[in-house]
Amino acid sequence: MPDDIDQIASRAAAAAGPYAALDPAIRARALVAAADALNEHADELIELAMAETGLTRPRLTGELKRTAVQLKLFADVVADGSYLDVRVDDRDPDFAIGPRPELRRTQVPLGPVLNFAAGNFPFAFSVAGGDTAAALAAGCPVIVKAHPGHPELSRRTAAIVADALESAGLPADVLQLVEGQEAGAELLQHRLIKAGSFTGSTRAGRLLADLAAARPAPIPFFGELGSVNPVFVTPAAVAARGPAIASAFVTSVAGSAGQLCTKPGLVFVPVDHGLEAPVGASAADVAEHRLLDPRIAANYRDGRARILATPGVRVIAEGALRFDDDGQGWATPTIVAADLETVRSSAGLREECFGPLSILVEYPDDADLSGVVEELFEGNLTSTLQLADGESSDELRALVQTLATRAGRVIVNGWPTGVAVTPAMEHGGPWPATTSGGTSVGTAAISRFLRGVAYQDLPESLLPAPVRAANPWHVPQTRAAAGESTSWGSLANA
Amino acid sequence: MPDDIDQIASRAAAAAGPYAALDPAIRARALVAAADALNEHADELIELAMAETGLTRPRLTGELKRTAVQLKLFADVVADGSYLDVRVDDRDPDFAIGPRPELRRTQVPLGPVLNFAAGNFPFAFSVAGGDTAAALAAGCPVIVKAHPGHPELSRRTAAIVADALESAGLPADVLQLVEGQEAGAELLQHRLIKAGSFTGSTRAGRLLADLAAARPAPIPFFGELGSVNPVFVTPAAVAARGPAIASAFVTSVAGSAGQLCTKPGLVFVPVDHGLEAPVGASAADVAEHRLLDPRIAANYRDGRARILATPGVRVIAEGALRFDDDGQGWATPTIVAADLETVRSSAGLREECFGPLSILVEYPDDADLSGVVEELFEGNLTSTLQLADGESSDELRALVQTLATRAGRVIVNGWPTGVAVTPAMEHGGPWPATTSGGTSVGTAAISRFLRGVAYQDLPESLLPAPVRAANPWHVPQTRAAAGESTSWGSLANA
Repeated sequence: MPDDIDQIASRAAAAAGPYAALDPAIRARALVAAADALNEHADELIELAMAETGLTRPRLTGELKRTAVQLKLFADVVADGSYLDVRVDDRDPDFAIGPRPELRRTQVPLGPVLNFAAGNFPFAFSVAGGDTAAALAAGCPVIVKAHPGHPELSRRTAAIVADALESAGLPADVLQLVEGQEAGAELLQHRLIKAGSFTGSTRAGRLLADLAAARPAPIPFFGELGSVNPVFVTPAAVAARGPAIASAFVTSVAGSAGQLCTKPGLVFVPVDHGLEAPVGASAADVAEHRLLDPRIAANYRDGRARILATPGVRVIAEGALRFDDDGQGWATPTIVAADLETVRSSAGLREECFGPLSILVEYPDDADLSGVVEELFEGNLTSTLQLADGESSDELRALVQTLATRAGRVIVNGWPTGVAVTPAMEHGGPWPATTSGGTSVGTAAISRFLRGVAYQDLPESLLPAPVRAANPWHVPQTRAAAGESTSWGSLANA
Repeated sequence: MPDDIDQIASRAAAAAGPYAALDPAIRARALVAAADALNEHADELIELAMAETGLTRPRLTGELKRTAVQLKLFADVVADGSYLDVRVDDRDPDFAIGPRPELRRTQVPLGPVLNFAAGNFPFAFSVAGGDTAAALAAGCPVIVKAHPGHPELSRRTAAIVADALESAGLPADVLQLVEGQEAGAELLQHRLIKAGSFTGSTRAGRLLADLAAARPAPIPFFGELGSVNPVFVTPAAVAARGPAIASAFVTSVAGSAGQLCTKPGLVFVPVDHGLEAPVGASAADVAEHRLLDPRIAANYRDGRARILATPGVRVIAEGALRFDDDGQGWATPTIVAADLETVRSSAGLREECFGPLSILVEYPDDADLSGVVEELFEGNLTSTLQLADGESSDELRALVQTLATRAGRVIVNGWPTGVAVTPAMEHGGPWPATTSGGTSVGTAAISRFLRGVAYQDLPESLLPAPVRAANPWHVPQTRAAAGESTSWGSLANA
């Protein structure tokens, strides 16, 4: 292992203890300071991001704002302290299975986290993005493995944020940056790294997840990988607002040139949907958009060609794809259609095609959609229903339940692109949506980087702050009183 | 794959949907019914367990009571509903990063769980033990892979509990039993199994964890593996109550013939501890105890011989080990001593030796115990301090913090054997104490078998019960009101 990799891991490990013990008010203020620093440097950062990713100014402006707001949200999570889930069992001589000691339980940070940044969100899932914010909020030092698609932006963001954090009183080296696949793979296997996070392709994510699992001491690896985000449109919905659905669908596929993990990749419509014309018209209105980098453009070219060549696939909107002199790809949306049997028999049509392509899957009137979901899908970030106003039935309720077994978010009459950063968001799902469960967006994301520790019969003077009786951090503490255990089970019989 | 394995997995999967959707009041009452059924059959079950495991009647009586109480505790967890962590984001047109939809998030069961039972707790970590109770409480069908050490007991327990659950209104096949290593390994790789749990050796646990990680669709595997549970005795503690510490130590090592994952395996004492005589006297009072089965007895024989033959190891109480005509081993405690340098240089002394053996590690006056912990230990279920009354210092506070980075439970002036089943218990720790984090004892154990799902803009009629506005299950719902996001970060600056 190269010396510098070892030194980076050692610096993160050296920061871990002091950072974990730091007053959470300082940690929270530092996250706000990081958000403010991003906002102060917004013009410079957005220019860099536009040049390196081809994403548009409005999209990047919104993304940077989201990234700053996210840091502030996590600051409040830290200041509030509920995330520590502090529990106190009173000493209990009458405990049902023998005298019980005093137990005080809180959450502690896992230790240094290695975060692999994504290429398609140069702010929100990159150096100062969701995984970094959640891990820092949990009290973990973070090493970000920069995405090669935006190296200059990564360096500038890391410098700005690390400086803001240190100026706000955090230990040095709480945020570090490394570059290069090899450095990332080596760090992931370093004994001082205690968790990994990742947003990207199923292929790369699986390779890294396997490295994390094969370590002498395995570590959790929270990867957010592929998703095709199926959408199911009912006949009543098509009848009520087919053209509006067609237009919103194309907008969702076209945004950021379809390079979103929540892009609707398979849209199930009744056979007689009549959406060819409105979809075609909407697609024709979309301006050419640059793809993120030449590698992604080449993968999109291959995936698109493979889908177009699949027997049974019919073109609705062919879309364009051209390469400029720098090897950058420029595209407009490609929308195709295939009947349910074709999608059933062609596994390749059910794999994520990263870019502005989507497939209308035409299902017969008597199709059992719950059965289709169970047969065709393993795990997705989202599943969506398009319904008519007031449409409801036992079949739809059953379909919602089935969708929830296969996805982390179920949507009605919206589109999966666009992810709110809130307490109730879930951005995860069964494999391959995520590798180890958990959400990578929203406040619940913090719990991935924590583990429980119980303190048994410690004198107040030796207890860490959040579990002290004096409660110097003013965190919520849930108490289990003595004597309760003798009536356990009675609540169930109430 | 044999047909029967596939059928068992299919039956569990068929039960998963109906069980997940069942009114939690029925689920809770069924857990109480299972507890009552165990109590009704206590005499028969304890006789079977004594014959198959060699554990004593008092120990097994207490363990069965604990197992029943545990089921009732989880019944109350289900009835209370806080474990669902229901969160509601109100629709918010003024959301900081653009209009926000309504989001309602709850926890859903992972699906069928395969639980590998332990040999050393034929009730509490076996067919109806902690992992089964937690997974059933979460709403997951459970397949238990029986431990070969108590096959008849496993079959009877499964029959009694499955009957009680079904009679109480749960779907058939919510609890199934399989036997044999091969069946367990095959099921763990079956695509319908969604999580694994395990209590046992590091070797077997690692093999299974690797199988779970290598699946085409990896699943979480919650293994509770090895632990040496270090204890640190200060000079002041020895001076104040050396003989009492010696006696309690031997009791902790001798109980259940040391066949506990929380047995104190390494006890750090000052060089001039003077505990040889009281330890020897206490050990001499311990009656011979049968080891669980011939395989465990043979492993203990080999491990004990290896430790006794390690240069620098000194015998304090040699203990006995004999084999009867059935190949069963019978033992009294073996206590040895070695200086810190010997333990530092002999990794074999720091590996768990399952059985009634423990090592006094003699440390010099100037030893840096925090440094020793960082150097010698990766992960343990517990770490313990023996202190004099009122003993406190910055060094001890730092040592507590270091111990918490290496263990799930930190104890003062107690012994790690004996694990309360309560809200604040943590029975887990960094690898190799556990494979995937989480606790396997206490109410927090339920969260291992759940994942979050967010419902976006669903009409009330299609929402599952726990997230409905009408709240028919009467679960706690936490609300994020509209307008809040505009002040995010202000709490941190308060």
